[in-house]
Amino acid sequence: MAYTLVLLRHGESEWNAKNLFTGWVDVPLSEKGRAEAVRGGELLKEAGVLPDTLFTSMLRRAIMTANLSLDAADRHWIPVTRHWRLNERHYGALQGKNKKQTRDEYGDEQFMLWRRSYDVPPPPIELGSEFSQDADPRYAGEPIPATECLKDVLDRLLPYWEDTIVPEIKTGRTVMIAAHGNSLRAIVKHLDEISDDDIAGVNIPTGIPLVYELDEETLKPVTKGGRYLDPEAEAKIAAVANQGK
Amino acid sequence: MAYTLVLLRHGESEWNAKNLFTGWVDVPLSEKGRAEAVRGGELLKEAGVLPDTLFTSMLRRAIMTANLSLDAADRHWIPVTRHWRLNERHYGALQGKNKKQTRDEYGDEQFMLWRRSYDVPPPPIELGSEFSQDADPRYAGEPIPATECLKDVLDRLLPYWEDTIVPEIKTGRTVMIAAHGNSLRAIVKHLDEISDDDIAGVNIPTGIPLVYELDEETLKPVTKGGRYLDPEAEAKIAAVANQGK
Repeated sequence: MAYTLVLLRHGESEWNAKNLFTGWVDVPLSEKGRAEAVRGGELLKEAGVLPDTLFTSMLRRAIMTANLSLDAADRHWIPVTRHWRLNERHYGALQGKNKKQTRDEYGDEQFMLWRRSYDVPPPPIELGSEFSQDADPRYAGEPIPATECLKDVLDRLLPYWEDTIVPEIKTGRTVMIAAHGNSLRAIVKHLDEISDDDIAGVNIPTGIPLVYELDEETLKPVTKGGRYLDPEAEAKIAAVANQGK
Repeated sequence: MAYTLVLLRHGESEWNAKNLFTGWVDVPLSEKGRAEAVRGGELLKEAGVLPDTLFTSMLRRAIMTANLSLDAADRHWIPVTRHWRLNERHYGALQGKNKKQTRDEYGDEQFMLWRRSYDVPPPPIELGSEFSQDADPRYAGEPIPATECLKDVLDRLLPYWEDTIVPEIKTGRTVMIAAHGNSLRAIVKHLDEISDDDIAGVNIPTGIPLVYELDEETLKPVTKGGRYLDPEAEAKIAAVANQGK
């Protein structure tokens, strides 16, 4: 026997479509993103992978993806818990900026360092600026970041994983996490024990459930990398890797 | 100072539009219903009544109404708790039947008795039949009913109200309950101390937030009946009263 964990990256957002750095800016799904979310739920239903409990970030693109996919899977009624520790990486001063312009302005090397290095965060966002979240009531009193690298995401996510998500997994219920490219990469890095260097090459496509069976003793993946509920997933992974080119 | 409670009846469902008894059958919102839900959220936002915590039933029409309205109000990220004790009245053997046909078949008197009497439930639904919920995984192990009158709804809802919702209200957070015509009538009957006879004349329109300010000492409404966040609410109440005619 093994535990079942489902990871679901939100569908395309309006800013994905515009090629802007989003981070914690709370943009809605695009129409394509809503369709991806529904399709994700249909894939769950077809595969008979039925979540019993949902965790989401505090951001509407992950929340709506969960809502739409669970409705399509007939699991809209399961309990849900939200936490900012599942949010996307905070992109600091890059939030709201165009990816191509940023690349042109700072050069390939700096761009790829901010985008893909494990431990180099972008400059922090200015408090009170247009795309800052310091006055957002949903984070009131919380120790939220002003910029993050992937290592920072892992550091703030792991305590929540250990203290809240793992105990839920250990009940034997099928847990689904609806979140973001980088918060899910952090979880995958942790589960699959991927090195700080190799995680740069790992990409997670939008809207396709990624299912891990976890060993009941060790909580390690029975099959490294899990399995996507979609044969086209590999092509979509390549598309993510090409963003910003 | 007073506590704030928001009651929101789900928007029109596909079966409201077809004039069928729905009860616990888990039908989706109609397109009109989705628009009503969004409008409900806009009314909350315009009035500055911002829910901090959400309670919903286990039925998709209430869940989707909450999802859409809170997204429109920018409160999609608040915590949510679902429970079958907030479900619509179970309509027993009438579930899935046309309201007008039922009226024609059983006559005006029996129809109005089932529809509006306080303590006469319809015949129980047959277990295992098309519109029964006995095999539904969301209610596994729960003492769910096979038919209900409004008194039964109040009896199963009140323990949840007292044990779970009231303590949340007493924290001072603004609580929203997204539910159904009859589960909300049960709450209103309790809050406004409406008699068993008079509750028959109380109707709650779909998709319009009903806001109660509750006294901090007694938890009784500061203004009996609360207030609807929509000047057209009175007309919509009359429309509900005319259903089945």
